[in-house]
This record gives sequence, C-alpha cells and structure tokens, in this order.
Amino acid sequence: MFRIPPLFNGMTRLRVTIWNEFVHERHNPAVAAIYPQGLHCVLAGALGKREDWSVRTATLDQPAQGLPPAVLDTTDVLLWWGHAAHDAVEDDLATRIQQRVLNGMGLIVLHSGHWSKVFKRLMGTSCGLCWREAGERERIWIIEPGHPIAKGIGNCIELEHSEMYGEPFGIPTPEFLIFVSWFAGGEVFRGGCTWTRGSGRIFYFSPGHETYPIYHHPEIQQVITNAVDWARPQGRPAEVPRHVPVEAAREKIVARGSSMHDSSGELRKSDD
Amino acid sequence: MFRIPPLFNGMTRLRVTIWNEFVHERHNPAVAAIYPQGLHCVLAGALGKREDWSVRTATLDQPAQGLPPAVLDTTDVLLWWGHAAHDAVEDDLATRIQQRVLNGMGLIVLHSGHWSKVFKRLMGTSCGLCWREAGERERIWIIEPGHPIAKGIGNCIELEHSEMYGEPFGIPTPEFLIFVSWFAGGEVFRGGCTWTRGSGRIFYFSPGHETYPIYHHPEIQQVITNAVDWARPQGRPAEVPRHVPVEAAREKIVARGSSMHDSSGELRKSDD
Amino acid sequence: MFRIPPLFNGMTRLRVTIWNEFVHERHNPAVAAIYPQGLHCVLAGALGKREDWSVRTATLDQPAQGLPPAVLDTTDVLLWWGHAAHDAVEDDLATRIQQRVLNGMGLIVLHSGHWSKVFKRLMGTSCGLCWREAGERERIWIIEPGHPIAKGIGNCIELEHSEMYGEPFGIPTPEFLIFVSWFAGGEVFRGGCTWTRGSGRIFYFSPGHETYPIYHHPEIQQVITNAVDWARPQGRPAEVPRHVPVEAAREKIVARGSSMHDSSGELRKSDD
Amino acid sequence: MFRIPPLFNGMTRLRVTIWNEFVHERHNPAVAAIYPQGLHCVLAGALGKREDWSVRTATLDQPAQGLPPAVLDTTDVLLWWGHAAHDAVEDDLATRIQQRVLNGMGLIVLHSGHWSKVFKRLMGTSCGLCWREAGERERIWIIEPGHPIAKGIGNCIELEHSEMYGEPFGIPTPEFLIFVSWFAGGEVFRGGCTWTRGSGRIFYFSPGHETYPIYHHPEIQQVITNAVDWARPQGRPAEVPRHVPVEAAREKIVARGSSMHDSSGELRKSDD
Repeated sequence: MFRIPPLFNGMTRLRVTIWNEFVHERHNPAVAAIYPQGLHCVLAGALGKREDWSVRTATLDQPAQGLPPAVLDTTDVLLWWGHAAHDAVEDDLATRIQQRVLNGMGLIVLHSGHWSKVFKRLMGTSCGLCWREAGERERIWIIEPGHPIAKGIGNCIELEHSEMYGEPFGIPTPEFLIFVSWFAGGEVFRGGCTWTRGSGRIFYFSPGHETYPIYHHPEIQQVITNAVDWARPQGRPAEVPRHVPVEAAREKIVARGSSMHDSSGELRKSDD
Repeated sequence: MFRIPPLFNGMTRLRVTIWNEFVHERHNPAVAAIYPQGLHCVLAGALGKREDWSVRTATLDQPAQGLPPAVLDTTDVLLWWGHAAHDAVEDDLATRIQQRVLNGMGLIVLHSGHWSKVFKRLMGTSCGLCWREAGERERIWIIEPGHPIAKGIGNCIELEHSEMYGEPFGIPTPEFLIFVSWFAGGEVFRGGCTWTRGSGRIFYFSPGHETYPIYHHPEIQQVITNAVDWARPQGRPAEVPRHVPVEAAREKIVARGSSMHDSSGELRKSDD
Repeated sequence: MFRIPPLFNGMTRLRVTIWNEFVHERHNPAVAAIYPQGLHCVLAGALGKREDWSVRTATLDQPAQGLPPAVLDTTDVLLWWGHAAHDAVEDDLATRIQQRVLNGMGLIVLHSGHWSKVFKRLMGTSCGLCWREAGERERIWIIEPGHPIAKGIGNCIELEHSEMYGEPFGIPTPEFLIFVSWFAGGEVFRGGCTWTRGSGRIFYFSPGHETYPIYHHPEIQQVITNAVDWARPQGRPAEVPRHVPVEAAREKIVARGSSMHDSSGELRKSDD
Repeated sequence: MFRIPPLFNGMTRLRVTIWNEFVHERHNPAVAAIYPQGLHCVLAGALGKREDWSVRTATLDQPAQGLPPAVLDTTDVLLWWGHAAHDAVEDDLATRIQQRVLNGMGLIVLHSGHWSKVFKRLMGTSCGLCWREAGERERIWIIEPGHPIAKGIGNCIELEHSEMYGEPFGIPTPEFLIFVSWFAGGEVFRGGCTWTRGSGRIFYFSPGHETYPIYHHPEIQQVITNAVDWARPQGRPAEVPRHVPVEAAREKIVARGSSMHDSSGELRKSDD
C-alpha cells in the first residue's frame, strides 16, 4: 500500500528543499521590500552555508507545484512556508509529502504553515491558533537548553516586530517543547515543537511573518539550521503492513479455528 | 471554521454510541454463530449494564451510515468497529467524526478499526501493522496497573484463540501504553493505547477478531467499559481559530509596521 | 521491598490532606495579614466546599512533621506547600510520601514546592527555575481547554500581583502542559504540568506566592479543586518486584543453563 | 547550587566510560567463562571499533569507585552495569552522576542496572520488574524502525538464552519505546526505552544477563553502539536556578508590594 522511496544514504550530502508558496512577495510591496526574490531565497542563503548540504528551493507556481516525485523523493529534509494559498496545494501532493515524512523525511513547518494541508494531516488536529498583526515585540524563550535545535542560542531571542500567535494551539502534545514565545500584547505561544510521525521528524517554528525581516535574523537562521540538522532521516522506513503466514511464524504454531482470510492474507470474497 | 456541537452536559446520562460496519456477521456463518445480531449488540449488552449510561448502536447500512448529525452530535463516546468496509465510509462522515472528537467526544477504536479512515486521520500516520490469523494464544499484559482503563483487571488477560497483530504498529507514540500483547507465534503488540486529540480522548484496543468470541469475554468487556468511562468528555472544546484585534489585546499595545490583513483579520485582497 | 498501604476505596469520601510548612505566616506580618491562620486553612476552606471530600490540614511543626503513617496512609490526595523549610523535612518522610504516590496517591505541588524534597525525588531533575519578586502582573493561559484541570476556567486567569517564575524549568517533559504563564517583566513559565509516577498522579501549579492573596482568588481555587479531583487514585498500586519461578511461567518452559539465583530468587551466596 | 562541569566539546573524540561493578565475573565460574576479564572489557572491545571515540572502563573496586571527578567530568557518555553491589555504590557518587546527566552527559543503563541508585534517582519511580532466570528464548522486537538506536537492526533480535524481565516495569512512560521483548515463558517487557533528564539523554536496554554471552552478540553490540552515538551531549547544560533582579527584567517594570527576599534574592532572615 505504501511506496518506499529510494533509501536515504547517510554518506552523501543532506538534500534540503525549501518550499514557499511565493505569493505575497510578488504582490505586496511591503513584503517584496524585505524578500525581493522570495523568502525561500533568504532561507536558501542561510542554509547554503553548510557545505555538506545540498539546498534547493521549490515554489507553488512550478510544474507539479514544485515537488514532482523527482524532487520530493530525493529530499531528505523539506521546509514549508505557506499562507495565502494553502487550498491551492493539491491533495495528491499533500498525500505524497505525508508518505515521504512517514518514510523518514524530515519536515520543518514555518510560521503560517501551521494551517497547511500537510501539517494538518500529520497532526490530525485543528492546528488552529489565535493571532494578531500589530508589529509587537516577541521574546522566544528556550525551554530545553539541551536540545540540539537550541544549540548556540542564549536564554531567549528577541524580535522587536512580530505577528502574535497565541494559545490554545490546536496540536497534539509535542514530544519536545523547545521554545515558548512571550508577546507584548499579553499572550504566550508554543512556537517551537517537535513530533515524530512514522520514521520522520517534524519541527514547527512559529516566527516568520512576511512583513517583518525575521528570516534575516541570525539567531532565527541558526534555529532553522539546527532544525534541519536534527530532522535528517535517522533510521529506516517502518514496515509496510504485511501478512505473516502461519508457516512463517517465528515460533512453531498450528492454525486453529475459522478464518476470514485465505492463505495469502486476502479477505475471502464471500465476506465482501 | 469549526462548528461547535451542543455542549456536553455532565449532569445527564453519558450518551454512548457503538458503530459497527456489520458486514461479516451477515455473510460469514462462522461469525454469525458468535455474533448472530452483530457484535455491536453484544457490546451494547455489556455497556448497557451501566445504568447511568444511555447506549445506542449504529451500523453502516443505516441512513447517513448510521451517524446523522442528530446522532453524532448527541454522542459523548463513540465506539468504532470496521474491517471489510473501511472504504465505504464517506469522507464527510470521517470529517464530522474527527471534528466531534476534537471538540471533546471520546472515541474507542476496536481491533481492525486501526485501518479506518477516522483513526488514520486522527493519528496522521500509516496505522499499519503485521498480522496473522491462526487462532493462536494471546496474552494481554497490563503495563499501567494504575490507569483507570486497567481497573479491575489482574496482571494479564488470556485469550486462547486470537488473531495476531504485530509490531511495528504505525502510530504516534501513545500518551499512555496500557496493554502489550504476547502471541504464541512469537510477536508482541501495543494493543492498548491512549491519545488526546483536541479536547477528545482516544483509546485503541486491539483484541476483537470476529471469528473468536472475544467480545463475550468478561475481562474484555470490563476493559471496554472502563475505556468508555475514561473517554467521557472532560472539559470544553478548544477555541476556534480567532483574530484578536489590537484594541482587544490584554496589554495595551499600538499597532506598528505594515500588515497583511485588514482590521477584521481578513487577508487583504491585493495579496490573493 | 515496598509496603502496600491500605487500598483506596472509591466508595468512600475522597481523603484530602493539605500540608503547609507554616513558617512565613507566623513570622512575617505581610504574610500573616493575608493568611492569618496559614494558607493551608484558606485552601481547606476552598476544598471543604466539596461535600464528598474529607479535608484535613497538616503542618511541619506537628508530630511526625504532620504526616505520621496514620495520616499519610489514609490520604488519597496530598497538597504540598513549602518554601523556607524544605531542608527541615526528614528524608524518611520524603521517602514515605514518594512511596505513597507510586502506590496511587495523588500529589498537588504548589508554588515554591517545586524545590521540595518530595518533588525533586519524583522528578529526578533539578526542578530549578528563574524567579523575581516584583509584584508584577501574571497571566495564566489555558493550553489544554479540554483537560479536566482547566474545567470552568476561561481563556486565562489574571493575577495583578505575582512572583515571576521563569524558564528554563528543570523538569522532565510534562505529560500534559495545562497552563503557561506570561509575566509583565517579559518571561514565560510552564506553570501547570502533570505527570504520572507509578500509579500516582502529580500536578504542579506555580501561582501561590505568600505575599499576595493568590489562594483567595476564586479561579485559582477552582483550578486546585479540579486538580484534586483529577489526581484521585485511579487504579491499583503497581506490582512489587517479584520473582516468577520457572514452574509458574504461563507458558510451559524448562530451565536451561546456569543461574545466578537459587530457586527462591535470591542471589547465590557464592556471588556476594 | 549546581556545579557546571567543563563544557562538552563536539570537536574532539567522544569520551565513553563503561562502568561495571565487576563482581560476578570474579566469583562465579559460569560468568567468568563468558567474560574472563569482565563484561566491561567485551563492551569496550565493541565500542572501541569506533575510531572517533575514546573508550575507557571503570569498576567498583577502583579508587573513588572508578569514577573520581577527573574521570566522570570528562565522560560524555557513561554505560552502567550493576547487579549484586547496587548498595555498595556511594550516595555521593550517585549524586555526582545524576548531576552530570542533568548537565548533558548521556547514560546507558544495562540490564540489572534498572535497580541501581542512579537509575532510580533519575526516574523517581520504583524501577521494579518481574523476573525469571530459566535460559528461555527472548525475541526483541523493533517498535520504532526510524529511531537511530535501531539503525541496522532487522525486525527483531533473537536470544536463544536469556533471563526474563517482565511487566509491569516501574518506570515513567518512556519518551520513546524502541524495543519490546517477547519471552518463551509468556511475558513481554519494555526493554529499550529513552528519556531526557535535564540536558542528558538516557537509554535503558534490558538484555545482558551475565550467565549468557549476550554482550558478545553482534546485534546487541550494534544497539549499544547506536545508543552511545545517540546519547552524546547535544546542547548545553540548563541554567542553574537564578534570581532575576527587577532592574534586569527584559521589560521595564517597577517593584510593587511586599517581598520575602532582599535585593540579592536571599530569603529575609526574619522569615527563618
């Protein structure tokens, strides 16, 4: 039922793909002033400093929405930024990304990507939150100083201008809560969270509103670089669902009683 | 974006609905011999002993696949058994159930329900597993003797005849692992797991293959009864996503910088 | 090795004991003005409204530091407040409380109790935090609206005057993070956390500094009442460590190879 | 309150120390036949194949019980095997190891080390289990194929002769459950578990009874090698508890109300 993509090869360069819907930068002058070539290019510049990584970008307007199998199946860690065009992403693409994550690809979901199809599918929850766009101060506190995603960061990161994202955030309890944000307007937010789904690692990182130069911030770039490093595929894809015939059992057993399935594991036709 | 159903009322009887696809019992004589009126009726008999509960059943062949809004929106805890007809369940029904769980309804997923649309959606993972139908012995060990779902159960439950479900089981790490099964053929399985999604509690319980009288077993009935009790709605639905205008901020702040949204929180048209 | 206390009896009234070191209230006029008879008495008044509960108080200056076996072993949920006298609590008492929690007693640790012997032992971590006493505003946000401990509470609780507790908080990742606090001075804190240890449920709740009337606040009282309800013993104590002789194995096996132990499970003397 | 050891330096070789109580190998001929120089030496041989690691051994009979500060404070990952002499380990040593873990050292606890002082302290629970020494077959199933500790291992590892460890195992819910064991006598066991405590990573791995040549098994050696790699220090030690004076608050605030502490953060004497 699941297609297993080419196996990851830890010996080669880590293959990183930055996906951006790339809408606001082309239609909103305020955003274009900050990210003239798209925010994916600023991120690519930051991640590209790692010489042992191979960094590409992909955008919604490209063929196959930027992620044809030839790209997605050779991606080890995918970054995702979307806001205005979540609905434009095809269901089939969301399905392919989800499968790739379950098979081991790392996924970094940025800012308004909380509302993307792929994040909602992997979480299974609403992924909703409260928000306010007032250019207010955000202070991102490190909750787990020992976590590799927090490496090289002090006690907190300050953003003088940011969009407020507030609780309750409709996510499953994170496996690790790395960052919690404080906002001048009075809210808090679990802005740095990790989960494992299948063999894939997922990190959600909330800072990154497009009207502020947040992805130019060195410490934000450091966190995202750390996160890519952390999210790299670790083991192997989980097994596909499989039937274990009686004669293949590891302990000798004899089949007893009636059965719904034939010897190949298919449901008998009379039941359908 | 989310419709909030009528609020749960802790003062009234707990409203329990047992959903069964009800396919095998009508087409397979071996199954019919064990569950002549459907396995949902045996479960209803067991749960019906709780006088403070109101127990209904629902099946796939009923109007609206057994769960029209009038039923689903008055259900506090839903039990789900499916096997042959997972694909027949409409996407819209799966969506409505998922929303109801996020808003606080408890969900008990039984046996082959691991492969149902609603369970896969709430987990976000493959939900795949290994399996073998050989009527072999299963021994269900209690991992968390202090958990309410294990109340009244000894060190383990023995089923002389069962279907093997084996690891790896494609689920997110459970919040609590209550039961782990041992199989005569040599496998193990995380057969009793809990998760919280939104405001809803979810319990997956693996025993229950239709060719063995597992739901007649008093201790299995005890576990399922405990699980319904545990899964009852606890708090209130999480907030829907919402915009907090600057003037509604709890700390006085002044809007600064450019904005992607108008004062009502809608994305400006020029961005679409 | 472990002494099993009298089993909890769900049929009777829940037995709640509020322990307070009761130091500041007798030596500091500012504290005495807020809690003339000790903060335990204010909490007892709040919890005492539940007619199905039996509420007692205990203080450090009483015989056996307020918790002789006759009291502790008949306590279903224990609340703990300490600050100046953590070191005065005897190791043996901390051991007895830890054992009682592992066997199923609920434990609510309040405010500066984060630094108590019993909390540190149950967590295994530093339990350290940052702090500042400036009477600043604290806003306690609800992270999990569906959790029973948040029942009846709105989006947040505001305390006009509070002591700041800040991250990083040296605790194991909580099973559920119910509340996160915002402070006017710029910090955040995971102020409402749950864990399970053995068969016991633990809730840490940070508000409660003794120079502000926080335990008089109706919503704070509501949270603590909810927490006691939630922490009540659920199942049974976990098994003590035990030897399973070969002839008692549930599957027939024959002993093979050499052994470090004699037939009763004791290490052979020649090894000591 | 906490002493911060020399900071870990990711640029140098990983410093691994294998601690063994080294009792049975010198007094029991059956054990000596399998591990003539002690099981720590077999493990050192296996881990020593990693040329980028620096591997040492330490035993109970050495000065400072093998772990003087000069050794412990230069250890990045510590392996621990004990059985007969848990009580002989000094409390102070257990305290120093616990602190070192909280500050970032990895800890691999092997087999009967579940009952060691240091493991019990870090878990906060009983750490008890059921057991039987019958040389029975154990099959260790991989639960998380994507986890780095399972790298290079197939679906399961089979040990023809092993000691049974059975549930319930008195541990906090592991963050990740990597392995679950099946035993011929009918039990199951969570034999491969991870936790984070402070900035340190902990892995418990149950196989390793001293009367069977389990640490000679290539796949067992692979798992332990993987675990050391995984447990290496990741970030930085968490902050020590610290007072944040009002004038150092990141947002401008003015101290209000009465205070329990003087300006340096010490409790006022009048309160003691």
